[in-house]
Amino acid sequence: MIKIGIIGAGRIGRVHMEGVTTGVKNATVVAIADPFMNDDIKKWAAEYGVKTCYSDYHNILDDPNIDAVMICSSTDTHADIAIEAIRAHKHVFCEKPISQDLGKIKAVMEELKKSDVKFQVGFNRRFDHNFQAIRDAVEAGKIGDVHLIRVTARDPEAPSIDYVKSSGGMFLDMTIHDFDMVCFLSGCKVKEVYAAGAALVNPDIAKVGDIDTAVITLKMENGSIGVIDNSRQAVYGYDQRAEVFGSKGQINVANDTPSTAVLSTADGVISDKPLYFFLERYMASFTKEVAEFTKAIENNTKVPVDVEEGLQPILIAIAAKKSLDENRPVKISEIKF
Amino acid sequence: MIKIGIIGAGRIGRVHMEGVTTGVKNATVVAIADPFMNDDIKKWAAEYGVKTCYSDYHNILDDPNIDAVMICSSTDTHADIAIEAIRAHKHVFCEKPISQDLGKIKAVMEELKKSDVKFQVGFNRRFDHNFQAIRDAVEAGKIGDVHLIRVTARDPEAPSIDYVKSSGGMFLDMTIHDFDMVCFLSGCKVKEVYAAGAALVNPDIAKVGDIDTAVITLKMENGSIGVIDNSRQAVYGYDQRAEVFGSKGQINVANDTPSTAVLSTADGVISDKPLYFFLERYMASFTKEVAEFTKAIENNTKVPVDVEEGLQPILIAIAAKKSLDENRPVKISEIKF
Amino acid sequence: MIKIGIIGAGRIGRVHMEGVTTGVKNATVVAIADPFMNDDIKKWAAEYGVKTCYSDYHNILDDPNIDAVMICSSTDTHADIAIEAIRAHKHVFCEKPISQDLGKIKAVMEELKKSDVKFQVGFNRRFDHNFQAIRDAVEAGKIGDVHLIRVTARDPEAPSIDYVKSSGGMFLDMTIHDFDMVCFLSGCKVKEVYAAGAALVNPDIAKVGDIDTAVITLKMENGSIGVIDNSRQAVYGYDQRAEVFGSKGQINVANDTPSTAVLSTADGVISDKPLYFFLERYMASFTKEVAEFTKAIENNTKVPVDVEEGLQPILIAIAAKKSLDENRPVKISEIKF
Amino acid sequence: MIKIGIIGAGRIGRVHMEGVTTGVKNATVVAIADPFMNDDIKKWAAEYGVKTCYSDYHNILDDPNIDAVMICSSTDTHADIAIEAIRAHKHVFCEKPISQDLGKIKAVMEELKKSDVKFQVGFNRRFDHNFQAIRDAVEAGKIGDVHLIRVTARDPEAPSIDYVKSSGGMFLDMTIHDFDMVCFLSGCKVKEVYAAGAALVNPDIAKVGDIDTAVITLKMENGSIGVIDNSRQAVYGYDQRAEVFGSKGQINVANDTPSTAVLSTADGVISDKPLYFFLERYMASFTKEVAEFTKAIENNTKVPVDVEEGLQPILIAIAAKKSLDENRPVKISEIKF
Repeated sequence: MIKIGIIGAGRIGRVHMEGVTTGVKNATVVAIADPFMNDDIKKWAAEYGVKTCYSDYHNILDDPNIDAVMICSSTDTHADIAIEAIRAHKHVFCEKPISQDLGKIKAVMEELKKSDVKFQVGFNRRFDHNFQAIRDAVEAGKIGDVHLIRVTARDPEAPSIDYVKSSGGMFLDMTIHDFDMVCFLSGCKVKEVYAAGAALVNPDIAKVGDIDTAVITLKMENGSIGVIDNSRQAVYGYDQRAEVFGSKGQINVANDTPSTAVLSTADGVISDKPLYFFLERYMASFTKEVAEFTKAIENNTKVPVDVEEGLQPILIAIAAKKSLDENRPVKISEIKF
Repeated sequence: MIKIGIIGAGRIGRVHMEGVTTGVKNATVVAIADPFMNDDIKKWAAEYGVKTCYSDYHNILDDPNIDAVMICSSTDTHADIAIEAIRAHKHVFCEKPISQDLGKIKAVMEELKKSDVKFQVGFNRRFDHNFQAIRDAVEAGKIGDVHLIRVTARDPEAPSIDYVKSSGGMFLDMTIHDFDMVCFLSGCKVKEVYAAGAALVNPDIAKVGDIDTAVITLKMENGSIGVIDNSRQAVYGYDQRAEVFGSKGQINVANDTPSTAVLSTADGVISDKPLYFFLERYMASFTKEVAEFTKAIENNTKVPVDVEEGLQPILIAIAAKKSLDENRPVKISEIKF
Repeated sequence: MIKIGIIGAGRIGRVHMEGVTTGVKNATVVAIADPFMNDDIKKWAAEYGVKTCYSDYHNILDDPNIDAVMICSSTDTHADIAIEAIRAHKHVFCEKPISQDLGKIKAVMEELKKSDVKFQVGFNRRFDHNFQAIRDAVEAGKIGDVHLIRVTARDPEAPSIDYVKSSGGMFLDMTIHDFDMVCFLSGCKVKEVYAAGAALVNPDIAKVGDIDTAVITLKMENGSIGVIDNSRQAVYGYDQRAEVFGSKGQINVANDTPSTAVLSTADGVISDKPLYFFLERYMASFTKEVAEFTKAIENNTKVPVDVEEGLQPILIAIAAKKSLDENRPVKISEIKF
Repeated sequence: MIKIGIIGAGRIGRVHMEGVTTGVKNATVVAIADPFMNDDIKKWAAEYGVKTCYSDYHNILDDPNIDAVMICSSTDTHADIAIEAIRAHKHVFCEKPISQDLGKIKAVMEELKKSDVKFQVGFNRRFDHNFQAIRDAVEAGKIGDVHLIRVTARDPEAPSIDYVKSSGGMFLDMTIHDFDMVCFLSGCKVKEVYAAGAALVNPDIAKVGDIDTAVITLKMENGSIGVIDNSRQAVYGYDQRAEVFGSKGQINVANDTPSTAVLSTADGVISDKPLYFFLERYMASFTKEVAEFTKAIENNTKVPVDVEEGLQPILIAIAAKKSLDENRPVKISEIKF
């Protein structure tokens, strides 16, 4: 039984509490820490059988009983906590992005070189049944050599302007998942990026220097071409599709829906909208990524998303922003790391 | 070039005029006859380049230039005209049903024994791309031995009570196509039939002794089981589906639609309704059945739907009506022919 | 927290252990009993945190701490254990069928009249997301008056001949779910049944007096017509579809699949087969039915599938068998209860 | 009856002969010209009732009986013949592209200013049922303001290297349809283009200076963003899809298929591949575009695709090539016209 301490009791910390407790057989959450710890959080944690609650996450790092930590705190604290955790000999599951500061990621990587703890980054969508079906087909050679990769990712609702301001920009906040997905689906790294974007959903987003709509072209190291389209607001719900095209065929995945029901009336033939948002759509993948993390600890094998893989989407996002600002294709090698 | 005379300028006569003229390369319509011949019909015929219009179809039968006739007159006249046409050495394409009077069908069959003209019955749905895809798969053994055959056929609108009164009943008027389809898809004859039916769409239909909704179970000679469901009114449009299930798999066909467009909005995910009715849905099959008829004449080969195949659905329809009236399964062999 | 004792550690007992433990928040399994209790079962139970294991289920009935029992033992013991449990003032969740012996069901019903315990029958498919989507649409009037109900249920593999021998026949063993589904989807009882059946999958099934393929027509009390088609073996997997057609439209549900992936190659366009069997397909519904059961206990409300609803499918199954044997439609009122 | 002369008896000339003859009621082909006129062409033309065959198209231009010409000759002759035809007071249907030489297009436009003949360009896909369904929804405001436009166009087989050499490059030869489609679907012009491309299907295509795979981003004048992906070879067949996303929803169209049949076996669930190539997929649109052309002549109304609309995709194609060569976004205004 792997003993886990969760750091951060916000939205994503709660997702992982639910996931580990109900779906990861060889792990148990033994403690949770949050700087704003209070009775509500304690009550909620108790429902999952977790009675050890701290304000200070150092209590988790200091507990020799704890094998692994899940860093679910605010993004700007990820790297610092990760370094402390590595030094405390805890295996680390770190939510994405590792950091928006490349220097801090470098520091984490340096620290990992000196340690043998496992370090996994939370790109949960890699564990989704649909995207795994594409990856499996590509790996099995069913579509031959990869020529084109397409990812569509559209959120059901634009976030608040306050959120947008502190998000690091759409590419680092939202598209980062899609940058990872293009790499994952194709099994290849990105060489160059060109981004076209605009604030079409909400002009206030432009005022704070961000965009809400984008098409991003990615030249891959193996010569294939990726393309992502994003919107911060699809009124019909969370639109999460992908397609890979190659020399022997094509594979694509459609959205998941609450049911397969199709209603035919005088007004038309009506199907379900996609599952509403990431909790509904990706809950199983959040559970599965942690199950894989604990398996890697147990069997001392490679984690499925390592620090290097966690770095790539951040580099692409930074290059994409530069491309958008300068309206030109930008090579990943232009981004200093 | 096969020269065709069309007998009957009603709905189905017009369908065949359009079909032969635009889609059957080796045939041409040279004359049309209708007891109610008038200027409108003449004008319409002229648009298709047909200038010979008669009130009396005997003019067509007497024309030595004409190779074949298409009998598109009212059902009760089919058999008599067919016999005359056979005697006049014309190849005959006879609209379904040959007759509702088994004695008259027998007379046609007797006449055919003495002749070598081609005689084809108008079960156009056999020539539909979807149902042919099922038939091809079944014949190619892709689903193995046939176990179950399912046909769904629902009209978009119930006919008028006047039409219902003179229709011969739903089984002879509408389900007859489905009885033929079960035989066609399975490649097998029906042995016994059980029909459950009711007037659920329009109670006035019950008052004139008919039904508008039915489920009919068919025991096939090879042991497989067929089932048909019918309604005279599907408010979402013409519902024409089928499925055959066997030892190695299953094949089914969905409805055809005007386009493949799918609209996703806050209200749902909306696709096209089926093509509205038999003209929209089956026009290509009307053309194709005549093309096959003319090919059989040209090459002196077997027609695709002969008089015996045209008889079967009528026997099944009569048995189904008996089953409905007596609420018991009825063997086809109980129907005297 | 409702304390549950599970009686029977076979396949279905294990399903419920998993379901209650991971998915029912207000209940906990505190004990399990099985006549063949052994170390393997004990070890398995311990993984779910259940340490109290008995050979004799009376230990569960005698435990004043236990609120409810789930009867997952062999079918022939359901009713007797149910009566004892009711007398011991335990709420009862009884797997389907309550019994194949109508006298025993009557005895359970008599016992329930004298008690105020909750009694729910395990028709889990009522809690499936797809079938609930149909039911919701029907209840909301979206398809108007119900005219036709269609259920397709085909298993991926035929059971062993030994299983078939002791199963009570396909109608009581397999179709019973579909009889319930027709009632559930339409919100209406069955009045008369006609069954056509054959052993087409495996002739040995005929030798032991059973069938493996059937089409069953159901005349409903409100005049609508239901139809079920069954096969014991669909080589492409567990085929679980349904459709309800009415005066204002139609709603149908397709199979669930492992993913939405569609692979297009030179060989064709290939989608996933259905989820393999009832564990893969219906696990969420097993959890949900127990969650509803515990809610009914907690709030002292009506259970969603009561003893009367549990009885109906058994009566229909018996009538269907009689119909098959006598090749005639059989009224439910002919079955003595 | 509008009398048409077809200039060019190659592939596309034959398509239009078939289309006009079988599907355009108010027009008739009276003559055909081809520099390589021979007995085979004459025999083929006679099958459509066309007996006037010339080697020199001037015979058509000189015939006062002829109302309109369809220019189906090789691309480099389009503009010169068009100018001669306009001067001869013939209405002109000109196959796409008008010319690859912008100067020649300018000359055609100058000539048209002095004339009142109708001039339509052959962007047949605008008349396809699927793309029209998108256009109708967009125009009706069903998806609100347009944010993203996506076109996927992949041919089933790469052309020969000889063809590629003289094609003017993939953008002018193949993508030109998609450039037009983005404009048509969105109802908006292109402002700037960025093209990423490679020869991934066949390296010999790179040797002759062309590409076979591309992703092209289009910034539209109204701020929305278009994206096209192309491949010269999709082994599963002709892949022709599109999607428009906006503030109120999204609409997309899938491929057309020979049938709706779905075969489920132990190997998977298999659907039809797309209709094979442009003849199978777009025949109805070729007929419809000419029907609209003749209607515009008859009613003296605006043609659906005028010379200005015919020019735009050529400008975009030239800009896209420049973008590819210089690896930077190129404004349409940079292309001198």
